[in-house]
Amino acid sequence: MNFYSEDITLSTNKRIEIIDITDEVYAVVKRSGIKNGIVNLWAPHSTAAIAVNEHDTDLWEDILDVLQRIAPLKGDYRHNAKYGWSTREQNAHAHILNCIIKPGISIPLENGRMQLGTWQSILFIEMDGSRSRRIHVQVMGE
Amino acid sequence: MNFYSEDITLSTNKRIEIIDITDEVYAVVKRSGIKNGIVNLWAPHSTAAIAVNEHDTDLWEDILDVLQRIAPLKGDYRHNAKYGWSTREQNAHAHILNCIIKPGISIPLENGRMQLGTWQSILFIEMDGSRSRRIHVQVMGE
Amino acid sequence: MNFYSEDITLSTNKRIEIIDITDEVYAVVKRSGIKNGIVNLWAPHSTAAIAVNEHDTDLWEDILDVLQRIAPLKGDYRHNAKYGWSTREQNAHAHILNCIIKPGISIPLENGRMQLGTWQSILFIEMDGSRSRRIHVQVMGE
Repeated sequence: MNFYSEDITLSTNKRIEIIDITDEVYAVVKRSGIKNGIVNLWAPHSTAAIAVNEHDTDLWEDILDVLQRIAPLKGDYRHNAKYGWSTREQNAHAHILNCIIKPGISIPLENGRMQLGTWQSILFIEMDGSRSRRIHVQVMGE
Repeated sequence: MNFYSEDITLSTNKRIEIIDITDEVYAVVKRSGIKNGIVNLWAPHSTAAIAVNEHDTDLWEDILDVLQRIAPLKGDYRHNAKYGWSTREQNAHAHILNCIIKPGISIPLENGRMQLGTWQSILFIEMDGSRSRRIHVQVMGE
Repeated sequence: MNFYSEDITLSTNKRIEIIDITDEVYAVVKRSGIKNGIVNLWAPHSTAAIAVNEHDTDLWEDILDVLQRIAPLKGDYRHNAKYGWSTREQNAHAHILNCIIKPGISIPLENGRMQLGTWQSILFIEMDGSRSRRIHVQVMGE
């Protein structure tokens, strides 16, 4: 049983946006030398999330539209009111969406390949940017 | 440390529907011979998802109703407009819901039993059928 | 490869509420003696869920508000109508939200520390209380 872990860092540029991190995750998996097991992705953040879906920038806009309909950026949130003096803390929408989408995902790894389907890319969802972000990649297996 | 994996295949019949795959997953777990560890389910699809909940076909209709309220089948989606010529690609709703519900889940396995509660069945959620679908079952442990 | 598991039990007091279980999970991780691996949390329930987010009781109210907007406690649900005679079964909203938020999460463990960020606490989301609840904590690693 082997463990390998590495952080991917990225800088987001917009308030909300989706960034494809598939290539960066694959690079870590390759460096791990582990062929069979599981790839655990974890963003140590409470206002960003990780999903797996198609690489289509038009679709990403559709996704962000629906997320903002679920939890609008400018809503009547207690969290935002409490920190009304801080522009950095007007982010209840992002906390709520993180609870729903989740900051992590576990992807099976076999024969050196993550078991992603043709239309599955690993997507980092920034919901309270711009910020410096980190995704912890843990590879566990043999 | 042992690994065992197998695919469950299924054919969905409706545009959106829920299918109980608990028995099929248990059959793979038994064939694995692994008693303690984790069962990683992964659908290599971007328009279907996996959840764990009660086997109640009435409830399933309620679930599908709410999902369609979150992301209506016929919405004003950029993804659908771009592929307006293709009836197969009018599925932005399904991509969006996959990002929210997720295509995978990890269930603890102990003494040969998945730690599912009384009202927990493993549910495959088709959101863009009818299609042939695949669920990758990876059992990891001892 | 070692496995250790233990149940956390708790009594919820309200119909819907959020309870921070980070300390209880950490206590299990310490007792496991495992330093590197993964912490799998699993609630064997279909009407409660697990998330990871900030410990802020005001924010928790915001989260519960949005969840109730997605699936109102009093909705027109087939599941509730079928069990109309039972006050304990008026809980379709909770089943639906469990499908979306999920009853489990996997957190990477390294050098004896879960890889939680500064603003990440482990939250149990009761959606159909008051009830006795259980969270199965499985630690897997070395």
